[in-house]
Amino acid sequence: MASTQEGFEESCLRITKRIEGVFFIITLNNPSKLNALTGDDFVYLGSLLDEANSNDQIYFTVLQGTGRYFSSGGDFSSITSLQYKSKDALKTWVSEYLSRDLYTCDQFYQHKKVLICCLNGPAVGLSAALVALCDIVYSINEKVFLLYPFSNLGLLTEGCTSVSLPAKLGNNISLERLIFSEPIKYDLLKNNIITKNYNMDDPIKFNEQVLKDLKKRTASLYLPSCLGMKQLIQSQTGLQDKLSRANANGVNRSLPQWVAGEPQRRFEQIISKQRIHKL
Amino acid sequence: MASTQEGFEESCLRITKRIEGVFFIITLNNPSKLNALTGDDFVYLGSLLDEANSNDQIYFTVLQGTGRYFSSGGDFSSITSLQYKSKDALKTWVSEYLSRDLYTCDQFYQHKKVLICCLNGPAVGLSAALVALCDIVYSINEKVFLLYPFSNLGLLTEGCTSVSLPAKLGNNISLERLIFSEPIKYDLLKNNIITKNYNMDDPIKFNEQVLKDLKKRTASLYLPSCLGMKQLIQSQTGLQDKLSRANANGVNRSLPQWVAGEPQRRFEQIISKQRIHKL
Amino acid sequence: MASTQEGFEESCLRITKRIEGVFFIITLNNPSKLNALTGDDFVYLGSLLDEANSNDQIYFTVLQGTGRYFSSGGDFSSITSLQYKSKDALKTWVSEYLSRDLYTCDQFYQHKKVLICCLNGPAVGLSAALVALCDIVYSINEKVFLLYPFSNLGLLTEGCTSVSLPAKLGNNISLERLIFSEPIKYDLLKNNIITKNYNMDDPIKFNEQVLKDLKKRTASLYLPSCLGMKQLIQSQTGLQDKLSRANANGVNRSLPQWVAGEPQRRFEQIISKQRIHKL
Amino acid sequence: MASTQEGFEESCLRITKRIEGVFFIITLNNPSKLNALTGDDFVYLGSLLDEANSNDQIYFTVLQGTGRYFSSGGDFSSITSLQYKSKDALKTWVSEYLSRDLYTCDQFYQHKKVLICCLNGPAVGLSAALVALCDIVYSINEKVFLLYPFSNLGLLTEGCTSVSLPAKLGNNISLERLIFSEPIKYDLLKNNIITKNYNMDDPIKFNEQVLKDLKKRTASLYLPSCLGMKQLIQSQTGLQDKLSRANANGVNRSLPQWVAGEPQRRFEQIISKQRIHKL
Amino acid sequence: MASTQEGFEESCLRITKRIEGVFFIITLNNPSKLNALTGDDFVYLGSLLDEANSNDQIYFTVLQGTGRYFSSGGDFSSITSLQYKSKDALKTWVSEYLSRDLYTCDQFYQHKKVLICCLNGPAVGLSAALVALCDIVYSINEKVFLLYPFSNLGLLTEGCTSVSLPAKLGNNISLERLIFSEPIKYDLLKNNIITKNYNMDDPIKFNEQVLKDLKKRTASLYLPSCLGMKQLIQSQTGLQDKLSRANANGVNRSLPQWVAGEPQRRFEQIISKQRIHKL
Amino acid sequence: MASTQEGFEESCLRITKRIEGVFFIITLNNPSKLNALTGDDFVYLGSLLDEANSNDQIYFTVLQGTGRYFSSGGDFSSITSLQYKSKDALKTWVSEYLSRDLYTCDQFYQHKKVLICCLNGPAVGLSAALVALCDIVYSINEKVFLLYPFSNLGLLTEGCTSVSLPAKLGNNISLERLIFSEPIKYDLLKNNIITKNYNMDDPIKFNEQVLKDLKKRTASLYLPSCLGMKQLIQSQTGLQDKLSRANANGVNRSLPQWVAGEPQRRFEQIISKQRIHKL
Repeated sequence: MASTQEGFEESCLRITKRIEGVFFIITLNNPSKLNALTGDDFVYLGSLLDEANSNDQIYFTVLQGTGRYFSSGGDFSSITSLQYKSKDALKTWVSEYLSRDLYTCDQFYQHKKVLICCLNGPAVGLSAALVALCDIVYSINEKVFLLYPFSNLGLLTEGCTSVSLPAKLGNNISLERLIFSEPIKYDLLKNNIITKNYNMDDPIKFNEQVLKDLKKRTASLYLPSCLGMKQLIQSQTGLQDKLSRANANGVNRSLPQWVAGEPQRRFEQIISKQRIHKL
Repeated sequence: MASTQEGFEESCLRITKRIEGVFFIITLNNPSKLNALTGDDFVYLGSLLDEANSNDQIYFTVLQGTGRYFSSGGDFSSITSLQYKSKDALKTWVSEYLSRDLYTCDQFYQHKKVLICCLNGPAVGLSAALVALCDIVYSINEKVFLLYPFSNLGLLTEGCTSVSLPAKLGNNISLERLIFSEPIKYDLLKNNIITKNYNMDDPIKFNEQVLKDLKKRTASLYLPSCLGMKQLIQSQTGLQDKLSRANANGVNRSLPQWVAGEPQRRFEQIISKQRIHKL
Repeated sequence: MASTQEGFEESCLRITKRIEGVFFIITLNNPSKLNALTGDDFVYLGSLLDEANSNDQIYFTVLQGTGRYFSSGGDFSSITSLQYKSKDALKTWVSEYLSRDLYTCDQFYQHKKVLICCLNGPAVGLSAALVALCDIVYSINEKVFLLYPFSNLGLLTEGCTSVSLPAKLGNNISLERLIFSEPIKYDLLKNNIITKNYNMDDPIKFNEQVLKDLKKRTASLYLPSCLGMKQLIQSQTGLQDKLSRANANGVNRSLPQWVAGEPQRRFEQIISKQRIHKL
Repeated sequence: MASTQEGFEESCLRITKRIEGVFFIITLNNPSKLNALTGDDFVYLGSLLDEANSNDQIYFTVLQGTGRYFSSGGDFSSITSLQYKSKDALKTWVSEYLSRDLYTCDQFYQHKKVLICCLNGPAVGLSAALVALCDIVYSINEKVFLLYPFSNLGLLTEGCTSVSLPAKLGNNISLERLIFSEPIKYDLLKNNIITKNYNMDDPIKFNEQVLKDLKKRTASLYLPSCLGMKQLIQSQTGLQDKLSRANANGVNRSLPQWVAGEPQRRFEQIISKQRIHKL
Repeated sequence: MASTQEGFEESCLRITKRIEGVFFIITLNNPSKLNALTGDDFVYLGSLLDEANSNDQIYFTVLQGTGRYFSSGGDFSSITSLQYKSKDALKTWVSEYLSRDLYTCDQFYQHKKVLICCLNGPAVGLSAALVALCDIVYSINEKVFLLYPFSNLGLLTEGCTSVSLPAKLGNNISLERLIFSEPIKYDLLKNNIITKNYNMDDPIKFNEQVLKDLKKRTASLYLPSCLGMKQLIQSQTGLQDKLSRANANGVNRSLPQWVAGEPQRRFEQIISKQRIHKL
Repeated sequence: MASTQEGFEESCLRITKRIEGVFFIITLNNPSKLNALTGDDFVYLGSLLDEANSNDQIYFTVLQGTGRYFSSGGDFSSITSLQYKSKDALKTWVSEYLSRDLYTCDQFYQHKKVLICCLNGPAVGLSAALVALCDIVYSINEKVFLLYPFSNLGLLTEGCTSVSLPAKLGNNISLERLIFSEPIKYDLLKNNIITKNYNMDDPIKFNEQVLKDLKKRTASLYLPSCLGMKQLIQSQTGLQDKLSRANANGVNRSLPQWVAGEPQRRFEQIISKQRIHKL
């Protein structure tokens, strides 16, 4: 699908891509908005993973952020701009919410290349859910955190977090932090989601250093083994199976809340400062 | 959700509903078009199941057809009317195709009431997939069949058929009929999907007779047991788990074909009579 | 456990056992009461399976009935004789109902020897549930049936039937017959549960003939292979895993009905002829 | 079931309950006996969870201990007071042991409200098993531990610990501590079972502080999201399925030891000081 | 792997292959020996499936027999010619038996192309196990049968039959026929394993007719859909997962029998006519 | 199988065994070669586990190393000495590679006795994979590590590591270290694989101390409980099921690399010092 960029003119500005050897590098590049992502951006991000997947030259897909945050999650303004209590509420939210989450998450957990996330800062919401779907995560320093404010927004375990977080962080911690919409800090992510901490400050240098390290570490490997290993781990642990089931269940169970307008009300309160968002 | 009918003014004409005691009765009522269903119709049908689900008075949801067919499947004209090779192809098909299939199927396999289908004639395509998701199917006579012409249309195992058909008809028959887009006739459906054949001719009398029988057969039952039994069967067999996984996988794996335009091309050939549809 | 017969003096009269070579033969021997079984009888039956299991000489456990019925199910008089709406209702039913069902079913699906049922007539209720847990069932003739009148009695899918029936008879037929408390006749049992029909009339001669045939058919076999095969089928199909889960779920979900007194009320109506039992 | 307290007059004194807003608070209140629990107490505890489950006003169920221990486990005197080598051994232990464990554990892993344990001190045996079934555990300080002395008592992995401990603490640690009947101390429980340590000394103040914190932390949440999230995590991770299977298997596999009298002998040795209990 | 035929000079004579358009046709061509297969033949057969798998032009892999039998199973003479009670027994049987079964079965259940078997006559033993692993089976007439004489030979459920037969024929029938080493005739295979009966006599004409039909039936299909459908059915039903597990368990559990020499003794008895083989 | 040592004359020198009470002690005793193991050695090691399994006196199987390493993995010289690009490549590698891995791993994850590894130093490759299959691992000090250099050797996740490592170390760490062929050091193994660190230097004293401790810690236990507990944990967690599936899939997916000669080429480069092995 050479034309995945068609129809995503605006998203292309916020999310860039480039290829370096066996690496397909995707960069969230809207630091002034803390890399918040619109609905279209999430679909576009998914389509970039699809592009990397289809390219036989690629063995590693690397996600990078810029600025202070990896990504502050869904762009609220794009969500509330939808007419949310129209007579078409059900149709609207089936098309807008359910379909996008499902597609983007699927592109993550079905991805065949080694999927590496360079966590240059905190990630929130659906963006944080995608971080939890990556194979390997490197952190810039110990100040990063993941925040899933779903119960604060009237949502459920979006982005397959009902499976990804318990699988990686354990049942009790995941349940507590999800239910109370409280951040998961570095000490809990270490060795579970984050496999290495770079102890750096500058996101640009961090991104460069990770890439430099990756090139060095992969130099002597038999690269087809890397993909074969990932394929075996995906299929044999059963995690991918559970994630796809959680994906369908998650979006369908959240739909009634969208149709009832609860998340929209709470998004609006945040925008109008009536509700304090835990960023 | 009292307002599920909002935004579905046209679908309301093609699909009617009524309540009789503990029965929620949904009737496909567009016989002149063989009860072909548009994308909106499928979502509306799903919303009616949701309505039945939320109504504590209801123990049985009954699907009925009218005329010669139960349903001839998706309405081709509605599908090809979408601009299918636009620059927005990916966004269009994520919103239009993926989301609707996912929502409607989910409403079927998650349904908590006993789901009974009165098969007044053949069912085709996604409609036939929904028949395979019902708990109990009664046939008007031996002339009914189910046809899944997906490989003829450039699609995959839509509507959870990768799981529902093998689970109910066995692996080999399901695979053969799906792969060759060939009908599954009464003799193979008997005792597997169809639990009773009424040997009648008139769909109206058939629908009446089934309902009359149901009322009689349920008279002395402890009705909460019926829902408790269904709940245990759903959860303990593991079928519902597999169906939700198949739902997410099915729509995501079919998406590339829609983006590439293969099904649309084949739908147009059928409309223009270049391709013979096996009805 | 040599002493399993201790404490079961009455059950010993209604259920006899003997060993012939590699066969452990258990006979329901209370034809005047259609082999109805009390709570103690079910536990005793389970303990006999345990005895066969522990005996290294035994390769086949054979269940036989006598008289007109294989077994008409639980003995109502024993059930209603319990003070069912006492202040100790919860404790009573946890001890009396939940524990016995759980123990007896577990002895059936965990049984290591080849478990053969000689169906000399119909089986009803929990007895019919046990028939569905046997490996091989032979029928005396085409007049046998299995009846699970649980929804008529205010119960749920007792005896692991939420898993055993869908696994052996398919989802739709099982759900329909369970929900409507309607008998499952020979034509549906053939090849699914019953593997051979003897077309005989006399239960005594039927029991003799099956045993004679079994001795002949096993003469040249390497008997350890038989147990090894059963062990592999049990573990690899996953059926045993689902049955044990269904066992725990079934009894715990039915408990509230017992505590509320619904089944007891309906048993009393049957005894007092206010409710017609479908025998 | 308004009458769950009937028949539990003594247990009501040892285990109290109260409702504060959305919190259902259960307190083990027998500090002089280290909150040891009789068989009836365990059933009563389960029935309290059932009561919380059925109350639509409740979103959180909070377990509290009093005194030095959270609970020292089963009350030995109640167990050995049963005539354990009587001629009714099988019937006795099916009714007494198997049924109670099964019921109480089921009430824990099926619980729909967020289940929070305030660990005011060590927990032992079946009580420790129930702690491992809670969603969230807070510890009073680092001196708490969980001890599963089952191999020392001639028992197996009681209370679903064959699944709950490996799922939460990992396979090797769980196996080692279970097999050697050795305590699992704070450092291993931290972040796996215990999600927060309060570093306090006084159980009463600890219980108050946790409750105060909970009220504050839940103030701005959309509470239905909390239950929806728990429901998705329970169903999608597959943990609940495994726990119910482990529940049935655990009690049935332990039954022969009870019938043979091994645990009873060892309980008596502890009471008569011949065997040192690792408290 | 262009060179898969290297080292299989003799097997190439007994098993031929050819390509016709999208069909990869493998023919068992040793009718004078009833298409009995040596250990090398099974590995060669597996390597041919691998070749078909790797060829992008191929959509359908067709297995054909010649003569009276599809295949009478393992060639006894090749098996007994191995020194079976040597001091190297374990090493010998790990290398000879375990590895070959594992490899060949894996090639069948992992096969990505539609796998069609033309059953020109009975199949026995491991050959019959492979038939049960095919997606679609056509029979020449009603005289075909499948025979798994494993319990007669001192073996277990070879060739994944502990999973494939219960999945396709049901639990009770599979267990009975496997345990008693009795043939499974056409009436039980119909609609479960065999999807169409050609009612013919001449194997050559049968093979031709099936191929002619296949070409006609696939003419208008979108062929990539066929492979996509099979892929979804394989992954979503979970059958492939169970087959791979059964494969490892089957060969490892049978190994002790081979090391002890039981199958070899029984093979020798058959050759020397002391044991009647049920062909 | 009293004669498992037959045919393993050389392996017997490199791997010794002895029985002390309830302990079956296996010692890797070739320190001059860092306890590298030939193909025969792996099969012999498996056969020793089988011997311990069959001995009713044994409750614990203890693996010990000697010298600097626990085991440096497969003996390269034995592997490359096989004619790897002969015309019999497929047959050779099916017999040599696939069968041995499958057999040895199966003996580990199916083992019924408590399986304890005394890690006197680093373990590499397939040996490190076997360490990850043990129930309990004690380390001599913090300098031990596990290294899986499979991607460096052109292999995949050998020895069930696609399941064992994610299950014990988590998904992200396992994937990263496997894909980059990088060592997993003590800090990551602590509490996950290693349950106790002895902080010693002398392997001989370490081995003695572990054994002494084990004797003391097991003195008061009811030993049958230990095996019953392990059996329940094995069956109820589902880990053993996944390991057996991963076993079959792992060896079959790695086979093409062996047939193509990639691992052999890389082994030769290591021997000839062209490739630096990360020891």
